[in-house]
Amino acid sequence: EADAYPTRTPEPERWIERVDPVVWQDWTEKAPISQAEAERFDRDGFLVLKDLFSPEEVRALVDRAAALRADGDALAGEDVVTEPGSNEVRTIFRLEAQDEMMSKLARDRRLAGIARFLLGDEVYVHQSRLNYKPGFTGKEFYWHSDFETWHAEDGMPRMRALSASLLLTDNRAHNGALMLMPGSHKVFVSCQGETPEDNHKSSLQKQEIGTPSPESLADLAKMHGIADAEGPAGTLFLFDCNTIHGSNGNITPDPRSNAFFVYNAVSNRLQAPFAASKNRPDFLANLGDPEPLELHEGRFD
Amino acid sequence: EADAYPTRTPEPERWIERVDPVVWQDWTEKAPISQAEAERFDRDGFLVLKDLFSPEEVRALVDRAAALRADGDALAGEDVVTEPGSNEVRTIFRLEAQDEMMSKLARDRRLAGIARFLLGDEVYVHQSRLNYKPGFTGKEFYWHSDFETWHAEDGMPRMRALSASLLLTDNRAHNGALMLMPGSHKVFVSCQGETPEDNHKSSLQKQEIGTPSPESLADLAKMHGIADAEGPAGTLFLFDCNTIHGSNGNITPDPRSNAFFVYNAVSNRLQAPFAASKNRPDFLANLGDPEPLELHEGRFD
Repeated sequence: EADAYPTRTPEPERWIERVDPVVWQDWTEKAPISQAEAERFDRDGFLVLKDLFSPEEVRALVDRAAALRADGDALAGEDVVTEPGSNEVRTIFRLEAQDEMMSKLARDRRLAGIARFLLGDEVYVHQSRLNYKPGFTGKEFYWHSDFETWHAEDGMPRMRALSASLLLTDNRAHNGALMLMPGSHKVFVSCQGETPEDNHKSSLQKQEIGTPSPESLADLAKMHGIADAEGPAGTLFLFDCNTIHGSNGNITPDPRSNAFFVYNAVSNRLQAPFAASKNRPDFLANLGDPEPLELHEGRFD
Repeated sequence: EADAYPTRTPEPERWIERVDPVVWQDWTEKAPISQAEAERFDRDGFLVLKDLFSPEEVRALVDRAAALRADGDALAGEDVVTEPGSNEVRTIFRLEAQDEMMSKLARDRRLAGIARFLLGDEVYVHQSRLNYKPGFTGKEFYWHSDFETWHAEDGMPRMRALSASLLLTDNRAHNGALMLMPGSHKVFVSCQGETPEDNHKSSLQKQEIGTPSPESLADLAKMHGIADAEGPAGTLFLFDCNTIHGSNGNITPDPRSNAFFVYNAVSNRLQAPFAASKNRPDFLANLGDPEPLELHEGRFD
């Protein structure tokens, strides 16, 4: 089967029409979101859901996240990224494997259940992490499509995955909230260039390869505008794997934190990388046999 | 007379109560702004004024600014700052001296007239510039009080100056709009440290000395919050010389540009620097005899 989304080739950048659906099944009254919400996700490539989690649940999750960060030494080495020159934990990968509450969150019907509906399949966790960006010195993260990397470097064949980000702090445009280009998920920007060896070691800090050109980004922004993923702690953002997004730096005193889960359809299991010499490590891309998640129905308070 | 606002001393940082008024005369019906606006400026340390300029005037000013930037070679060397590695003009200082339209803008009743009212005195231009920050790569500018620098390095004795920024592009929180801490102008943060030789050569890129500590900034943000100076091209921002402000970087494709004038009361003329061995050059701090501006009543369309 020909690669539907060739990228990181010697040819000049080009735009390729998306051949995959965004919402993989018809809406019915049994769906975990409203018809309008499903249509918004299809049109914009993202969805903001407020008030799904009670204040008590948000408090419990925020506290647990802080405890995990404080106890970073207890976690496996490659799962934890600390601030250079200090022991401050910035990222904890494989979040659902670190802690029972986070395991329940990964399987929560409000995350995994909605992902299952939108992707029209059983789902598993492709990547997950707890993110913490401090105030004053938060660095920007440049525009990219996650799918471009997952396809090129992880061998994800089709656009049948999405990200769920549960905010654990208030996010505002001026403290570096995620920015998304609504509608950009309907085109695949095939990038020029070649994946360097061990690209993930630098791309997690600053992605250079696999990002659209300034001209493409300016065109996409002009066509679609830029939306700010603002909301109080407890807000859930869902976004399609191909939605172009990025975030600005943050000089405000307010940190940003979220629990982040990438759900992939079990039928969309990873192959050999489409544009890299070897797979990224397991903490970045779940290389095991996809095991369908069992939904968790409980609460966190 | 003792220095009312000592700063850049060996002593630890401390907060000093402002001894100067913010609005230097009582409001009357002859004032160029409403009573509510004057009260807002007094309380918040800034004021947003929309629709003072017609779309035709904004267009004329935007076009003139672009022409000045395109013709940077024609301007005096030290007045122009170009992007390292290119001829792209980023800043043009002494803006009112470069061009007749900009001279009129500096004297416009909607800028200088309001400044004259708020400062309760004749005014002159202490510093002015055309700012242009490109998209994609706009750098952050860290929190500071302008007065702290003008006092320490330019010898401005009292808090009787303000800045007027006329937006020449749309400014939004996510493209690096100015952020201000409303109410922060009522306290002077006396900073620890010493002004290095020729500090302005690096401080225009990144201010290190004379900025409040993270602890002070976090306290001020908690007390006062952070306001985003958002608005379409043509919006006028006025802010007190001591209001703490800064701006985030900007990865969006949208540049930011403004025409920027600092008005000082003629009675507040510069002395020897309060905390530096010599004055900054004239393009950063007007060292001549303060000449009261004659207001300009015309329009730009």
